[in-house]
Amino acid sequence: MINLSNRYTDLAIEAHEIFMNSSEAKQQAQEGKTPPGVVIENAGDEDVKITRVRITSRTGEASIGKPMGNYITLEIPELKDNNEDVNKKTIDALARELRDMLKLKEGSTTLVIGLGNWNVTPDALGPKVVSNLMVTRHLLQYVPEHVDEGVSPVCAISPGVLGITGIETGEIVRGVVDRLKPDALIAIDALAARNMERVSTTIQIADTGIAPGGGVGNKRMELSEQTLGMPVVAIGVPTVVDAATLTNDAMDLVIDSLMNESPKDSGFYNTLKDIDRDQKYELIKAALNPFVGHLIVTPKEIDDIISRVSKVVANGLNMALHQGITLDDVGRYIN
Amino acid sequence: MINLSNRYTDLAIEAHEIFMNSSEAKQQAQEGKTPPGVVIENAGDEDVKITRVRITSRTGEASIGKPMGNYITLEIPELKDNNEDVNKKTIDALARELRDMLKLKEGSTTLVIGLGNWNVTPDALGPKVVSNLMVTRHLLQYVPEHVDEGVSPVCAISPGVLGITGIETGEIVRGVVDRLKPDALIAIDALAARNMERVSTTIQIADTGIAPGGGVGNKRMELSEQTLGMPVVAIGVPTVVDAATLTNDAMDLVIDSLMNESPKDSGFYNTLKDIDRDQKYELIKAALNPFVGHLIVTPKEIDDIISRVSKVVANGLNMALHQGITLDDVGRYIN
Amino acid sequence: MINLSNRYTDLAIEAHEIFMNSSEAKQQAQEGKTPPGVVIENAGDEDVKITRVRITSRTGEASIGKPMGNYITLEIPELKDNNEDVNKKTIDALARELRDMLKLKEGSTTLVIGLGNWNVTPDALGPKVVSNLMVTRHLLQYVPEHVDEGVSPVCAISPGVLGITGIETGEIVRGVVDRLKPDALIAIDALAARNMERVSTTIQIADTGIAPGGGVGNKRMELSEQTLGMPVVAIGVPTVVDAATLTNDAMDLVIDSLMNESPKDSGFYNTLKDIDRDQKYELIKAALNPFVGHLIVTPKEIDDIISRVSKVVANGLNMALHQGITLDDVGRYIN
Amino acid sequence: MINLSNRYTDLAIEAHEIFMNSSEAKQQAQEGKTPPGVVIENAGDEDVKITRVRITSRTGEASIGKPMGNYITLEIPELKDNNEDVNKKTIDALARELRDMLKLKEGSTTLVIGLGNWNVTPDALGPKVVSNLMVTRHLLQYVPEHVDEGVSPVCAISPGVLGITGIETGEIVRGVVDRLKPDALIAIDALAARNMERVSTTIQIADTGIAPGGGVGNKRMELSEQTLGMPVVAIGVPTVVDAATLTNDAMDLVIDSLMNESPKDSGFYNTLKDIDRDQKYELIKAALNPFVGHLIVTPKEIDDIISRVSKVVANGLNMALHQGITLDDVGRYIN
Repeated sequence: MINLSNRYTDLAIEAHEIFMNSSEAKQQAQEGKTPPGVVIENAGDEDVKITRVRITSRTGEASIGKPMGNYITLEIPELKDNNEDVNKKTIDALARELRDMLKLKEGSTTLVIGLGNWNVTPDALGPKVVSNLMVTRHLLQYVPEHVDEGVSPVCAISPGVLGITGIETGEIVRGVVDRLKPDALIAIDALAARNMERVSTTIQIADTGIAPGGGVGNKRMELSEQTLGMPVVAIGVPTVVDAATLTNDAMDLVIDSLMNESPKDSGFYNTLKDIDRDQKYELIKAALNPFVGHLIVTPKEIDDIISRVSKVVANGLNMALHQGITLDDVGRYIN
Repeated sequence: MINLSNRYTDLAIEAHEIFMNSSEAKQQAQEGKTPPGVVIENAGDEDVKITRVRITSRTGEASIGKPMGNYITLEIPELKDNNEDVNKKTIDALARELRDMLKLKEGSTTLVIGLGNWNVTPDALGPKVVSNLMVTRHLLQYVPEHVDEGVSPVCAISPGVLGITGIETGEIVRGVVDRLKPDALIAIDALAARNMERVSTTIQIADTGIAPGGGVGNKRMELSEQTLGMPVVAIGVPTVVDAATLTNDAMDLVIDSLMNESPKDSGFYNTLKDIDRDQKYELIKAALNPFVGHLIVTPKEIDDIISRVSKVVANGLNMALHQGITLDDVGRYIN
Repeated sequence: MINLSNRYTDLAIEAHEIFMNSSEAKQQAQEGKTPPGVVIENAGDEDVKITRVRITSRTGEASIGKPMGNYITLEIPELKDNNEDVNKKTIDALARELRDMLKLKEGSTTLVIGLGNWNVTPDALGPKVVSNLMVTRHLLQYVPEHVDEGVSPVCAISPGVLGITGIETGEIVRGVVDRLKPDALIAIDALAARNMERVSTTIQIADTGIAPGGGVGNKRMELSEQTLGMPVVAIGVPTVVDAATLTNDAMDLVIDSLMNESPKDSGFYNTLKDIDRDQKYELIKAALNPFVGHLIVTPKEIDDIISRVSKVVANGLNMALHQGITLDDVGRYIN
Repeated sequence: MINLSNRYTDLAIEAHEIFMNSSEAKQQAQEGKTPPGVVIENAGDEDVKITRVRITSRTGEASIGKPMGNYITLEIPELKDNNEDVNKKTIDALARELRDMLKLKEGSTTLVIGLGNWNVTPDALGPKVVSNLMVTRHLLQYVPEHVDEGVSPVCAISPGVLGITGIETGEIVRGVVDRLKPDALIAIDALAARNMERVSTTIQIADTGIAPGGGVGNKRMELSEQTLGMPVVAIGVPTVVDAATLTNDAMDLVIDSLMNESPKDSGFYNTLKDIDRDQKYELIKAALNPFVGHLIVTPKEIDDIISRVSKVVANGLNMALHQGITLDDVGRYIN
């Protein structure tokens, strides 16, 4: 569910970058210290770059502005180009990271939730992933003899959004979880990134729980390992940038570029340096009024991109959850 | 959810017609008796003909083959022609009958369920009705000052079907009902008719509960006033005829027509009379094998028809549930 | 464009079967003669059975009821099951047969026409194939440096149907052909079969030209090698059976079965034998009135099937027209 | 077809505003002169504000940057709110202005072209308008007895875009025009606005011809009264703002606001005044690289908005072209 209520990013990796650019972090770096409570691990290659961010303490939480837990980011610059080889590498990496995070026993039942609004193109990622998923729980229940070895029980729903159902998404998910009692919950969602280059090229996996329609600030609706007693993994792909954020960041680049061109200590340089960047952001929001929070920036080709990326994410899930089968088998299970 | 597992109709009015044509019923009629346990009431006009069938006893149940309760049928021959006047009369009649059946107190919360598979055109009626519904529960909760007088809390979900979710539809609905505790439940579903002329021209309202995906015969999943402690109303529109039923009925017409043309007591007449109609039905099913239960007969224009009829049914619901507003207000509430 | 105006099939292979069952053909067979003017050739295997019917004379035309020319049929019983291996074999066979029929020189420009109504699920095959096609003419014109070796100029339109555009489809195609002057024309269309088993399991390729919306009988609108001076190939897949035809054929099977069970020369046997099958067909049409020509029989899963089969047909075309590339390259060219 | 190749607007009314803010125009105004070659006329009310801009000379062309001719703009702030009353007023005004511009004789045949890419939500306006159009040419040709008095022959196509068909859109339209020889051509297209407030609230009608996919600069493909010998009217609705333009304009607002707050002749004020705004625009484009020309800014609800606005525009056309009918009759003619 794309939530543009603040200028901050849904991606831990971007939040970390922003922190690393802060004066606080730069000073720590000069002193040879790494930020406490944040552990970074790199893997993968240039096609699929993997970054594992672990936030291990309250200090880490405060620095990054994200709850404690594990955040794995796959960066795949060619993900939106529909390159068959890159797609396969992405599916493999996603399946591997998911399996490591979920640590499911054989035969575990997984419930997959496709968050977001299917009527809003860039928000439809979750429901589209669900529609490409190998849903098998009912087959194992009613016709197990027709199911391949190594297929696990997977079920899935796309609960819609508050504006469509009139019901908090968390209520629907809770209701289903209470009756089904699955062994793990996976939620798929479209995210907002800060940097346009991340749109449709980044996949984030996190084990810190979800708060669908979180802007409303409803603690009761949080879905996490703590509240549900089962692993809760969120998979997100940024599909938009908030217009105010984009404008603000472009403006910062322009100011930096003008400063680079001016002699240091010239009046012009100092004036630019003195621009209050927070005040500027408020001005931009005023300029975009009454559209703030409602304007999204996307590539023109977003309809196509969403449908391609959804297939890749769904197949990553299919390979992670059904360990006995290969990509060639998936077709027979998809409606 | 279109269920073609038997040749019988989902419509009480058709079941009643079939019974009235049986030799048992004909004999009763000759004796001046009406079938016990079935009360029929007619209303409406030639544009929107209303038939209220009440099954009041076990004998009635046995005759008609439907559970005890109220079945209201609207027959609107021009419903599929998109005639504005007829649409408005239908919406009025549907709203009136629904209100009478639901008898809701002001401010009651209604949960509407759009049953069926949105990927199968003639089965998508339920989800399409939901997408044209005035969903207002969240508005009354969070921004009541923006809601017109006389708008009641309505929420709605389209839970999908077992083949898509891997979860019994009844489980999902139960889970949501348990958390939301609405005052009434309304389920919308596409039906199978026996007579092609009923397709997209008939709306049935019943208060006897629903068993989504009922073929499976899962008592636990029945949703009714008895099991849930709140009114449960089902609204259905036939959108298909089962191919085996159509073939069988067409064949009966042919046989009858041949019999009419032959001299009574001729060998030919007697031969035709002796054809075992049940055996014939079995032969037809064999002839259509392996497609039996999977072949549907629909008008070519079914995609259009479904989308028109969905709007009419949704507006009947909108007018029934939000008694303070008019059709002209609906647009402002629909996404 | 699905045309249900008569009970006959769009498939040459079915028309040939019907002829071979006629008393005329049976007598010829007894006399050791093959039907003159019809040459049959078989190829392929049990996964993809290939039958090449060549009608070489007016006598052949009269027997089969189809114009002189070549008709190639691929029969793929598992086509609708989304089996990856069978899909690949089908794509290979389709590409090979198409290349042999088209005999295009390198660098030839092909115009592909997706016939049918995109709003009517079983009629949307043509437009869906076009949407999965590698369209390249503009790339070769404007950015040839970004196009792989062995990619030929392909362009494509889905002209809609008379009821949507108000224009004879043939007029639109003619208008575009006149301006573009391609080297070959390929038209894709959904067909009506006689036998339910052929639906979504058969692909027909023919070089005899097309008459879109042919029921209207407009000679001026025929698109063929003769009228356009370029190869015109039609690719068709049956997606429906006409309800009257289905009913009629099921009834014949029932009658045959009853006859088999009765002692020969019994009154019953003779009565059944004497049923006038043409009169019976008229009675069925009357029984289905006013729906005759508007009722279609399809599998319930037709939406899914259409989208799968469209991809296979599109890839057969992609492999036939762009001889320098492989299936793995297609993704990069599809929007 | 949304073309983001430059920062300028598709709307004559915005181009005129930009000109009126230029130093050149301000000086003319001080001298009491109005810009030569531009005639402005206002009409309508606050719900539907009508501005008729007529560019009458080369000087006017040069000032505004748009070709000579008539540009009528309807501004409807509530167009995106689905208010029934405002919709009806808009349809009336649009029908009236269109009739005045087209001046068609009774019985004239109109060809409507839905420009744009149906797979790209904000570009799908043209095809969506066409799908809500009363297409009647074929009915008047084949079943005139079923057509109401006062219905004129209308036909319509959505030719797609170069990237989908591989064919210049102008070629397809030309081919169809050559064969059909209609009396008038109307093209519907999604536009890019400069000001976010115009998105989905403004309808522009112009009689200056169209150059579909015009960025390519292909004179041969221009469709205008001059090249075709019949009235050519373009109807456009802005659905996006280019991200670079939005960023640039927001930045200008920020700079202006900072200047307003600083004492005039302060160093800061002068520095801001000296920022080269063209250089700034180049910097923004560099900052948005490699996305320039591919990023669009839209309201999140664009899918809904497009479908509502399409209906209003289509009904404006229906009322303009079929003068004998009312809005209540339209339903019976739409598929």
